[in-house]
Order: sequence, then structure tokens, then C-alpha cells
Amino acid sequence: MLNPKKPEQSDVTMTEMVLPNDTNTLNNLMGGRLLHWMDICAAIAAQKHSNRIVVTASVDNVSFTEPIRLGNIVTMQAKVTRAFNSSMEVHLQVWAEDIPAGKRVSTNSAFYTFVAVDQNGRPIEVPALVPESPEEIDLFDSALRRRQLRLVLAGRMKPADAKELRALFETE
Amino acid sequence: MLNPKKPEQSDVTMTEMVLPNDTNTLNNLMGGRLLHWMDICAAIAAQKHSNRIVVTASVDNVSFTEPIRLGNIVTMQAKVTRAFNSSMEVHLQVWAEDIPAGKRVSTNSAFYTFVAVDQNGRPIEVPALVPESPEEIDLFDSALRRRQLRLVLAGRMKPADAKELRALFETE
Amino acid sequence: MLNPKKPEQSDVTMTEMVLPNDTNTLNNLMGGRLLHWMDICAAIAAQKHSNRIVVTASVDNVSFTEPIRLGNIVTMQAKVTRAFNSSMEVHLQVWAEDIPAGKRVSTNSAFYTFVAVDQNGRPIEVPALVPESPEEIDLFDSALRRRQLRLVLAGRMKPADAKELRALFETE
Amino acid sequence: MLNPKKPEQSDVTMTEMVLPNDTNTLNNLMGGRLLHWMDICAAIAAQKHSNRIVVTASVDNVSFTEPIRLGNIVTMQAKVTRAFNSSMEVHLQVWAEDIPAGKRVSTNSAFYTFVAVDQNGRPIEVPALVPESPEEIDLFDSALRRRQLRLVLAGRMKPADAKELRALFETE
Amino acid sequence: MLNPKKPEQSDVTMTEMVLPNDTNTLNNLMGGRLLHWMDICAAIAAQKHSNRIVVTASVDNVSFTEPIRLGNIVTMQAKVTRAFNSSMEVHLQVWAEDIPAGKRVSTNSAFYTFVAVDQNGRPIEVPALVPESPEEIDLFDSALRRRQLRLVLAGRMKPADAKELRALFETE
Amino acid sequence: MLNPKKPEQSDVTMTEMVLPNDTNTLNNLMGGRLLHWMDICAAIAAQKHSNRIVVTASVDNVSFTEPIRLGNIVTMQAKVTRAFNSSMEVHLQVWAEDIPAGKRVSTNSAFYTFVAVDQNGRPIEVPALVPESPEEIDLFDSALRRRQLRLVLAGRMKPADAKELRALFETE
Repeated sequence: MLNPKKPEQSDVTMTEMVLPNDTNTLNNLMGGRLLHWMDICAAIAAQKHSNRIVVTASVDNVSFTEPIRLGNIVTMQAKVTRAFNSSMEVHLQVWAEDIPAGKRVSTNSAFYTFVAVDQNGRPIEVPALVPESPEEIDLFDSALRRRQLRLVLAGRMKPADAKELRALFETE
Repeated sequence: MLNPKKPEQSDVTMTEMVLPNDTNTLNNLMGGRLLHWMDICAAIAAQKHSNRIVVTASVDNVSFTEPIRLGNIVTMQAKVTRAFNSSMEVHLQVWAEDIPAGKRVSTNSAFYTFVAVDQNGRPIEVPALVPESPEEIDLFDSALRRRQLRLVLAGRMKPADAKELRALFETE
Repeated sequence: MLNPKKPEQSDVTMTEMVLPNDTNTLNNLMGGRLLHWMDICAAIAAQKHSNRIVVTASVDNVSFTEPIRLGNIVTMQAKVTRAFNSSMEVHLQVWAEDIPAGKRVSTNSAFYTFVAVDQNGRPIEVPALVPESPEEIDLFDSALRRRQLRLVLAGRMKPADAKELRALFETE
Repeated sequence: MLNPKKPEQSDVTMTEMVLPNDTNTLNNLMGGRLLHWMDICAAIAAQKHSNRIVVTASVDNVSFTEPIRLGNIVTMQAKVTRAFNSSMEVHLQVWAEDIPAGKRVSTNSAFYTFVAVDQNGRPIEVPALVPESPEEIDLFDSALRRRQLRLVLAGRMKPADAKELRALFETE
Repeated sequence: MLNPKKPEQSDVTMTEMVLPNDTNTLNNLMGGRLLHWMDICAAIAAQKHSNRIVVTASVDNVSFTEPIRLGNIVTMQAKVTRAFNSSMEVHLQVWAEDIPAGKRVSTNSAFYTFVAVDQNGRPIEVPALVPESPEEIDLFDSALRRRQLRLVLAGRMKPADAKELRALFETE
Repeated sequence: MLNPKKPEQSDVTMTEMVLPNDTNTLNNLMGGRLLHWMDICAAIAAQKHSNRIVVTASVDNVSFTEPIRLGNIVTMQAKVTRAFNSSMEVHLQVWAEDIPAGKRVSTNSAFYTFVAVDQNGRPIEVPALVPESPEEIDLFDSALRRRQLRLVLAGRMKPADAKELRALFETE
């Protein structure tokens, strides 16, 4: 039985400068490039929690509402929110900063899921996560609902069995 | 009023060879790199439907179940499933092929949403989509439910108002 | 003796978006980048025909007549035209599309030759190709003449021995 | 009338180290990557001759006979062989070196053609080339034959009119 | 006169995963790639201090004593140590982590200098830096000596005039 | 005992074209990208001298005084100046050329140090260097002083012991 870990032990900050090849013809960062950076940042958080090689299992819905411009600095912060046997959910927040203009905006947040694997690529147990702050506890609790949604969307759970998820839709 | 278009008019096939820099230390394609390719492929489909510059608005849940190996050929096929004013949902299927081994597997599917914009980055109307085959009609119909899920997850619609989505959880 | 294959079994479509780093100071796609994409696309066609690892043996004359612009979509289609023991000739067509402008032009065509190799890099037999359509038969027949030209240019065949090739210059 | 230039005035040497992403699954340099490097090297030679922006007009047959390995040093040397109004033919030689093994081999040679253009992309006159060494004179003379072959292959000259080229096939 | 700033206001953390193309044939991170990442990280710190576009003016001696391996996570932390009119010195620390092995080592430290420029590339005044912690004060004080060494090495100051620097060599 | 070598035996020229992704928002080459190219060029020189795999041990102070623009041609020339057991100092000169404008300027010079290693990454002896031209002899002699400065800056030599270096500061 592995020693449980705290969210702060997997905390990771990654910073990228938006270069020409990352942008579309409007000089805005392409969504796919950001998803790529986010995947690497979230994978490092999952590695830090598990001390294992990790592979991406899923990414939940991601919305892109704020354009990020050529030359902007993108900062991502990720930490593990909950562990399930060999898998971990990672929460990720993204900010974009136009430093000369003195503007910094929150642009995205996302949940990635990773599976820890051994050298042969087989799933292997990871430590439990013990949340501490109210926000961490909230993310830990809601992780169950997000997991059910993932399983329903992947066709691996019937909507009727997704108890926590259904509760969302039954509030009258 | 723009002339409606058929799904086949936005159909696009993209092929990539998995190179060393696309892989993790197990020599498997990193999830983020695949999300990047998928975004470009889906964006081209949305461009073809709208004849406009497009920006990624969201990507729905994506699961990664099959490892894709160094040297594999990744084939993506995308087409628009439904249009809503200035936005388009694109369905994307992904296959990975180990050609010397004669093995080809379906690895992922995903829904991306794009917004068509003018030269100043402002949303602009796109043609309606008219589905033809039974599969296209099915994707067209279920697009409404996926759209509600996106809005609920983005906090822009109350679960109680997501009529089509709720139906999923009320079947008994 | 390997089962012969049809051209359609090696048919491959590859799509690329022209990004800033692919362009010169006039914002046009650099010829060398296109040759690089064409090589990968043609190699996949040769892999599909032979189910082997393949190495580029040669590329025939390629002309660049149409400028391809930043943001354009480049589509390449390749298929095997003829097999000779361990080598395959691949025909490749290239189109560039400015989607917002609704313009699509044929920009290039080329012939690449690949050799199928085993895990130690030694040449190995490939299936024969059996052309079907009139265009495929024409490409199959003229492959002999192009092969003689390659051998003459590489100094491995005397012009006097290149019977099919010489016929080109003796018509009156 | 522009002052004529010597071949040595366009002489350029380019050196590249073969990195993992440049190689196929046998750890050999991919042909397309080499064509890309060669195009850049040859373009610089044409720039030096013309003091203009240049665009690739064509590349002649290139054969790949020697595998180039991961970690090898690739050296390319290019110079202009002849100028025709606004176009220049560039000859390029390529060597690969495995330095720890003390082995250096000549791997390729090629002819690229470039057109000098003004800021609007329109062809513009370039200086004549005056060859000096016997080898330079030989390349200058044979440039005519290669040019006829290019025009014939591009369907812009009838084989019967390619006088210098035909001579090659008529030696009995 | 601009308001002075504290070192923590320019503090930036950057994280990179070592991918195959970043490594030499021993699978170790190449020094030049690390210098490239360090330059970007340090430039962001200088941007944050000055709220300006910045250009690299110099990098001081950097030693590479610890090999950094393929798959390692490289973490860089940078902050401004002192400002001189339009230039800023940035101190940078680098750690490499083999997460599955649970090993993290300090690998490098460096001083970069940047100049803040306006939209036309002309130097422009930056805020003064006011150090707070003992370590920050120490870096602030020694910045003068490092600056003299840079000027001496660049041939822009006579060794005899480098008072603070000379003191280093006169301790008996 | 290995046969000594001359500087010209390690001479290497590398040429790069500045592409969009190499530049900052002012369209100038980023310092870190140039340091990356310089490291590869210098490493090849050290490989040629030692016929070994080499790893970067240090780079001395580098100043960036001239902006290098998008589309410029960067030429680097490197050769070994002195060998010490398993390490080699490499001197590197850099020019930038705006060919259409007919302008070529010397932009940087630098000293890199490399260690030759065997297949297990352990330091291994390299040939002595025998300088020939007056400039080579001067670089050979001053290498001792630069080496002392490196050791002092790395905290591995006391300033008081750096005899050749101290002489610089004692000229009255």
C-alpha cells in the first residue's frame, strides 16, 4: 500500500512563449497547440504524483473563449485532483499574458486523466490523493461525477448507473 | 441566406507518420500531439464548410484507449455534422496503422467545435448543413445533445434547461 | 511468389496546412518543405503496397510553377504505378487550396522511387502491380521509360541501351 | 546590364547534424528531409549570385544510394553553374560523415533551378555566370542539355527540338 | 521616473520535457538546446520586470556538469537581479528531474542580460530593482562585478578600470 | 599517445536561414536560437578534432550587439584552439548577411568547451592541438587565461591561483 500524497506534491507550472508557428493566419494561438502543451504539463503533474511513466487516458471538454496572441506568454498550472487505482485526474488552469500591455487573462481550464504504467506499458497502482484546501476537497469530490461522465461518453457505463452524474440533472 | 451544404463537401483526410519527437519514453505517440493533429484536420473541415477562417471553440471528451507506436501511420477523417449560426461541430475519426505488421485499428473519435470569423476575428454566419446518410442524420440529431452538454460544462446553461441531454438520464 | 496488388491498395491522401515556418520572406511555401512532405506521402504509399519498411531511392524532376501561400491547404495523393523486384515507382499529385478564396489549383506532380528493405536494411521482393484504369495502365507502361532515364542520369545505363527512352527522341 | 559573376561568388557550405526526428525507423536520414536541406542550401547560392529573393523553380532527378545515419554530419556545397535571364541552375554536392568512425562518403549530387523575383514576386534579370575552372566550364556547357530535359519533362519543349539533349541518344 | 520593482515581480518558472530531438547520440540533452530554453525563460523574467519587449544582450559563462537525460523534466527559475538604465541582469537556476527514479539535481545556473526596447528597437528605460532577501541583496551587489567582467571581455572597458572586478584578484 | 592535429583539421562552416519561428516579435533572431546553432557548429569542430562523441562543458560570455533579421543568412565558422587532456576549447565566429541588401556583418564570437567521451559517457583523451598561423598561436596562448577564468567562475579555482588571468588586471 503506497503512502498517500497531497495535491501540492504534484503541482507543476509550465510557461510557453507563443511563436509564429503556433499561430493561425489571424496571429492567434491554434487550439491544438495549446492542447499539446496542456497535455505535457498535466502529464508531468501525474508523473510527480505517481513517480511513474504515464500515458494520457482522456481529456474532458475544453472551451476556448479568449484568443491568445503571437508573443503572449502562456502559463499553465496543473495538479492531481484524485487518484483511482492506476489512474489520476489532473486539473489544469491556463493564463495568457500580454506583458508589454500589462494584461493577464484566465483563458482555459481542463481535466486530463492519465494512467501510470510500468516499463512494459501495463497499468500499475498509484498513491491515493488526500486533498487539503476547500478547493482541493471540492475538486476531489466532483472528480467522481466527471469520471462517470467520461465512462458514459465512452459507452462504458449506462447513464442510469451514473448516480452522482444523474443528480446534476434531477435538481428541480 | 447562404446555400446549405452537405457533409461530404467538408470531408477531409489527413495522414501523419509518427516520428521520434512525437513519442514518450515508451515510444508511444503522446496524446497532446494527436490532439494537435486532430485540431488541424478538424479546422480544415470547418474551413471547407464555411469558406472562412475558423477558430477552435471547444473539443469534447476524447479517450485514448489504443497505444499508437513510433513509425505508425495515423489517418484522420473529419467532416462537419451540424452548423449553428457561426459555429460548426466537426466529427473526427482516427485510425493507426502498423503497415509492416498489416494491422490497422480505430483509435479515437472526437467532436471539435469551430467558429467562423471574418478578417477582424468577428463571428460570421455559416451555411446550414443538410445531412444525407443515416449516419449523418444521426450525428446531426445528436449534435443538439452534445451542444447542451458543452454549454452545461462551460457553465452557460443550467442542467435543468438541457432538455435533450436530460432525456439521456431519464430513460427507464 | 507474392500476390500482385492493385494501385488503389496503395492510395494515400495527405493534407498539410502551410504554417509560417514553412514559408520564405514572400510568405510562399518553400520548395524544399514541399519535397519533404511529398517524400513522406509517397513513402506511405510504397509501404502500403509492400507492407515493408521503405527507403527513398530517387525523386524525378519536379517543377514548381504555382506559388503556394501561407495558410493554404496542401493536399497530396500518391499511389504506386509499377513494381520492379524490390523497388516501386510512386506517382504523386499535389493541389493547393486557398479555402476562404474558394480557389484550388493543381501545383505539382512527381515520381518517387522507393526500395523495400528488411529489418537489416537489405532489399527484399515486393508484390507486382497490376494496373486497372486506362490512366493506371498508361503510368505503368511509361514507368519503363522513366526508369531508363533515371539509370542514364545516374550513370548506370548507357543512353544507347535505353530503348524505350530513345524512342521519345526518334519520332519523326 | 548587370556585371557577370564567377561561380565562387555564390559558393556556400551548409552543415547539418542528423537528429532523431530526421530519421526513419531504421535510424537513417529520410530522403525528404535531405531534399529540404538541399533546397535551402541551393537557394542561398542563388541568392548570393543574384542578390535577390529567389524561388525554387525545379529540382532535377536525385538518387539516394548511401544511407545516412543518425548522428552523422551532412555537409552540402552549392554553387551556381549558369544563369538564363531570371533563372539560375545550382549544382549541389552532399557528403555524410560518421566522425567517430572516421568515414566520409559522397552521398548525392543534384541540380536545382531558381528564379530571382522582386518584392512583388515577379521574375527579374540576374547577372550572367562566367565559369573559370575546367569543371565549372563543363557544368556550364552541360546546363543547356539539362535545361532541355527539364522543358521536355515539363511538356514545354518537344523532344525533337531538344538538340543538345538528343545528341546524347544518337551516339552510335 | 519609473516605480522600482522587487525581484519577485519578475519571477518565472518554466518546465520542459526532454524529447528525442533535444538529445545527442548518448541520449543526453544537448547544451545548445538548454541555452535556448534558458534564454526564453530569462527573457520572460526581463519582460515582466520592464513590461517591454526585450532583446538578449549577453549570456555569461555557463558550465554543464550534470548530464540531463531523455525523458527528464527540466525546471528553470529566473528573476531579475539588477537594472541598469535600459538593461537588466537575470539570474537563472536549472534543475533536472528523473521523476520515475525520484532524483532531482541542480544542473546549471546562469546570468543573462537583456535590453528593453521600444517598438522601433531603440533602448528604453526600465524600473530600478530593489532587492529584499539576503540572497537577492548579494546578487544585486555582485551584479556590478559581473557587469565589469562582461565589459572587459567585450573589449569595452580596460581591466585597470574594473575596480570591483579587480578586487577579486587582489585579495592576499 | 595520439598524433597532434592542426586547427584546420577541425574547421567547420555552418549556414542557417533565419525562419519565422527563430524570431521575436520585432522579427529579430532570438539569442537562444543562435546559441543553439553555435553549440551544434562548435560540437562538430570538437568531434572532428577528437573523432569522438563530445558533450558541451561550457560556453564563455557571449555578447549580442547586432540584430539579425528574419530572412538573413547566418554563417558560423568554428575551429579548435587548444586541447587539454579530454577537453577542447573551440573558437566560433558568426556573420549575418542580408543578401538582397548586399550587407554582411560580423555579429558574434564565442568560446565553447567540449569534453570527448567514450560510448559510456566517460572522458577520454584527445589529440594535442598544434597551432600554425599567428592568429592560431595567439588563440592557443590565451586559452590558458580563459580556462582559468572558467575555473574561477565555476568556483573550482581560487582567483589567487589564476596566474595568467591575474596578469590581465595587474598591468599598471
